[in-house]
Amino acid sequence: MYKVDLNSDLGESFGHYTIGMDDRVIPFITSANVACGYHASDPVVMEKTAAIAKKEGVRVGAHPGLPDLMGFGRRVMDITPGEAKAYTLYQIGALAGICKAQGISLQHVKPHGALYNMAAKDYELAKGICEAIYEFDKNLIVLALSGGELAKAAADCGLRTALEVFADRAYEEDGTLVNRRKEGSMITDEEEAIARVVRMVKEGKVTAITGKDIPIKADSVCVHGDGEKALAFVEKIRKTLIDEGVEICPLDEIV
Amino acid sequence: MYKVDLNSDLGESFGHYTIGMDDRVIPFITSANVACGYHASDPVVMEKTAAIAKKEGVRVGAHPGLPDLMGFGRRVMDITPGEAKAYTLYQIGALAGICKAQGISLQHVKPHGALYNMAAKDYELAKGICEAIYEFDKNLIVLALSGGELAKAAADCGLRTALEVFADRAYEEDGTLVNRRKEGSMITDEEEAIARVVRMVKEGKVTAITGKDIPIKADSVCVHGDGEKALAFVEKIRKTLIDEGVEICPLDEIV
Amino acid sequence: MYKVDLNSDLGESFGHYTIGMDDRVIPFITSANVACGYHASDPVVMEKTAAIAKKEGVRVGAHPGLPDLMGFGRRVMDITPGEAKAYTLYQIGALAGICKAQGISLQHVKPHGALYNMAAKDYELAKGICEAIYEFDKNLIVLALSGGELAKAAADCGLRTALEVFADRAYEEDGTLVNRRKEGSMITDEEEAIARVVRMVKEGKVTAITGKDIPIKADSVCVHGDGEKALAFVEKIRKTLIDEGVEICPLDEIV
Amino acid sequence: MYKVDLNSDLGESFGHYTIGMDDRVIPFITSANVACGYHASDPVVMEKTAAIAKKEGVRVGAHPGLPDLMGFGRRVMDITPGEAKAYTLYQIGALAGICKAQGISLQHVKPHGALYNMAAKDYELAKGICEAIYEFDKNLIVLALSGGELAKAAADCGLRTALEVFADRAYEEDGTLVNRRKEGSMITDEEEAIARVVRMVKEGKVTAITGKDIPIKADSVCVHGDGEKALAFVEKIRKTLIDEGVEICPLDEIV
Repeated sequence: MYKVDLNSDLGESFGHYTIGMDDRVIPFITSANVACGYHASDPVVMEKTAAIAKKEGVRVGAHPGLPDLMGFGRRVMDITPGEAKAYTLYQIGALAGICKAQGISLQHVKPHGALYNMAAKDYELAKGICEAIYEFDKNLIVLALSGGELAKAAADCGLRTALEVFADRAYEEDGTLVNRRKEGSMITDEEEAIARVVRMVKEGKVTAITGKDIPIKADSVCVHGDGEKALAFVEKIRKTLIDEGVEICPLDEIV
Repeated sequence: MYKVDLNSDLGESFGHYTIGMDDRVIPFITSANVACGYHASDPVVMEKTAAIAKKEGVRVGAHPGLPDLMGFGRRVMDITPGEAKAYTLYQIGALAGICKAQGISLQHVKPHGALYNMAAKDYELAKGICEAIYEFDKNLIVLALSGGELAKAAADCGLRTALEVFADRAYEEDGTLVNRRKEGSMITDEEEAIARVVRMVKEGKVTAITGKDIPIKADSVCVHGDGEKALAFVEKIRKTLIDEGVEICPLDEIV
Repeated sequence: MYKVDLNSDLGESFGHYTIGMDDRVIPFITSANVACGYHASDPVVMEKTAAIAKKEGVRVGAHPGLPDLMGFGRRVMDITPGEAKAYTLYQIGALAGICKAQGISLQHVKPHGALYNMAAKDYELAKGICEAIYEFDKNLIVLALSGGELAKAAADCGLRTALEVFADRAYEEDGTLVNRRKEGSMITDEEEAIARVVRMVKEGKVTAITGKDIPIKADSVCVHGDGEKALAFVEKIRKTLIDEGVEICPLDEIV
Repeated sequence: MYKVDLNSDLGESFGHYTIGMDDRVIPFITSANVACGYHASDPVVMEKTAAIAKKEGVRVGAHPGLPDLMGFGRRVMDITPGEAKAYTLYQIGALAGICKAQGISLQHVKPHGALYNMAAKDYELAKGICEAIYEFDKNLIVLALSGGELAKAAADCGLRTALEVFADRAYEEDGTLVNRRKEGSMITDEEEAIARVVRMVKEGKVTAITGKDIPIKADSVCVHGDGEKALAFVEKIRKTLIDEGVEICPLDEIV
């Protein structure tokens, strides 16, 4: 039986500002990555997001980011591994507190934006993040880019790791994502994107940008909920996967 | 046997900014109120403060404040009870996460600055804060102003409450603190301040600003560590209390 | 000849967060109140907003707010008149700098949200704000609530004052706005709202919530651009005013 | 006649947090670089700092930094040239507004911390900063590291540039600062440090870490005021320069 998780970055609204349509995308996914107040979100938003996830039976994970609200956590900041560890602990703890009050617990941790990319390339930074996760709760799952340093550091720490793939991104032969600035980095055709995901999940393969087939492990597919088109795509990818005999279930039942 | 706790507001440094001499005052106290990143502190500071407290065997409590770093959480902000609840949960959770990583747990919660004063006067706001505490961990102790609404709300919620007294502040006949702007609001004579504390602890009485003796419950004495003079005072009050046969012990062993 | 200004709060987006449809509402108004980075906005947003206003020939004013991004500057904060003065200077200066780089200058200042309401009631605070404005540039116009303390303080300082009215709000007999929590505080019927504005501008009168006609001075009408419905209303009110022989022109040509 | 300016980074306190002894160092310097609320400072601190500088007849410059209060603007952030331009304009404008209210104007701009280092290496970023300065006021002086990209960009923009040297830092043969992590990067002997500065000012030469003499232009010497030792050093370097026949005067009289 094939299994895959659908994860989405949620709870990114802040105060009077709204991003995303959380209540509409949550019913289609199995794991919600909830922003923790550094790059986005605030305690009231986190509370609401956790409540919707609980109601829909969707598992909650922490989505810690860099302390850069103005840049939405998307700008590389030269923080130390020690700072990465402390910032991660702070954010996981804050979200876990909000979840605990609602009687739910965290399933996973997935760093956000620039922190995600930095952790995929910098082992020491990734180790700082993983130490935070392990020391907070060694049963948490790390949701990481396939083949990156974060996945390595998580394994070295003794943490369970789930690997995520992207429907709309092209891959290099070594399994890394093609840089967004490069021609062909995005898979814009919906049918193709979905077919690629089905193949990644069922065959463990994807065609790299060079045309060569490479092995890939797809524990989870990252989907978006920031527009009608994105929502329609989530619904479609979910339906197609089910039709293909793939069970959509949370990370916890996969790794 | 008389018992009293000595608590102090700590971990108030932020980034490159230092406030207080935490490592020097911690050895003299029994409960540390650690700022949680809203009115002061950051994850790195919180980590260091928790580590010192752990090393010295001092119990840690959360010291949540208003989201006003520029005003150090000392300016009243018109937040709703729901916001107070969410902000408290967020901050308690963040500090608890940092403590958990070090193998220690929280003993108590004491709101900071304007939030402390607002919670002492506004029952609904106090209730929001207490709900956050109760839902996070019903074994946490609320450290509150004697006679205030926070103490009432905590009791109504079924939380243990510890009442704190101030060595350097005068009291009204109804047990509230004399407004700082009023003549005679501060007890400036050190000997007198200490004698008052000893009497509050051993006799449960204090002389109000009117000259009348009033009953007062002193589970904890709030002391400061932001200067040589403050440190010397803490050492002295501690020594005097011990000489007077009072055991200095954490809140957890008192309420 | 009747004249009136149409003003709108703009430039309220922040980083990755968008609020309002600035480029679409600006063509219909004559004065843009641009947020300055405290309650909303950031330097990049301010630059873009100033550029659109310049292109459309719309006058720019500073819209300083409280340092409360999480609360969008809508929560009362107990700041001192000195802080109000410094925060206002900082924000006016920042926006003026951005405008200067584009070859435009500021026309007016209108405090935002809670600061606007606080300044309408607290003369000392209003005075702090007006001193900032006067010391920065005594030719700036203060856009204030008719009958409030800010209007008084501005006049006392020797600043030009423009009074604004609201199409969608009911008035008390003393000319103040009916509290939003009170029944009947909002004028929900569009035709009625527009007819009221026309009468305020041409006759200088409005029917208070009690049914009694009161005098009112309408130098400017505050309009919104945060939705299709709001935009349609701005277009309609503008057209009706013109049809009624009212010239729509910036504050600078009115007071 | 030899001339040199003494500049110092000031106004770095924030809210309840104090850094530096501004009132004590200002009398010894000729140019004050005032933080503008991004990496440090707040409007009230800026106001106070400008007032002290005015009283002591010291020229004021803007010291814009990265939006990273938690990291004191010392951590590299991957901002775009456009963001650098907008952030610089915002901060210069804010400080200029505060100065204008006191009847003084800005003399210069010196980026802070990581932004200073980034601008010394990245021409495009430096150009963004210089465009902001030029568009705000083309008479402002750019205070930059000798030989860096910021100095180049400023010259290309048509801005006056002043070059600063460091008493306590070793230089590479190409005139750049020796990396702090490298052995010998700091000049720890006070006498040597002062002798080096005198030679830089009078002879336009300094001995690089390799032992070779290199040419260097010293329009300004950066000094610190964050401790008794630093203050004593400023006093000493000032006295020695005067004894050596060097006139201490603001940038404006040098470049």
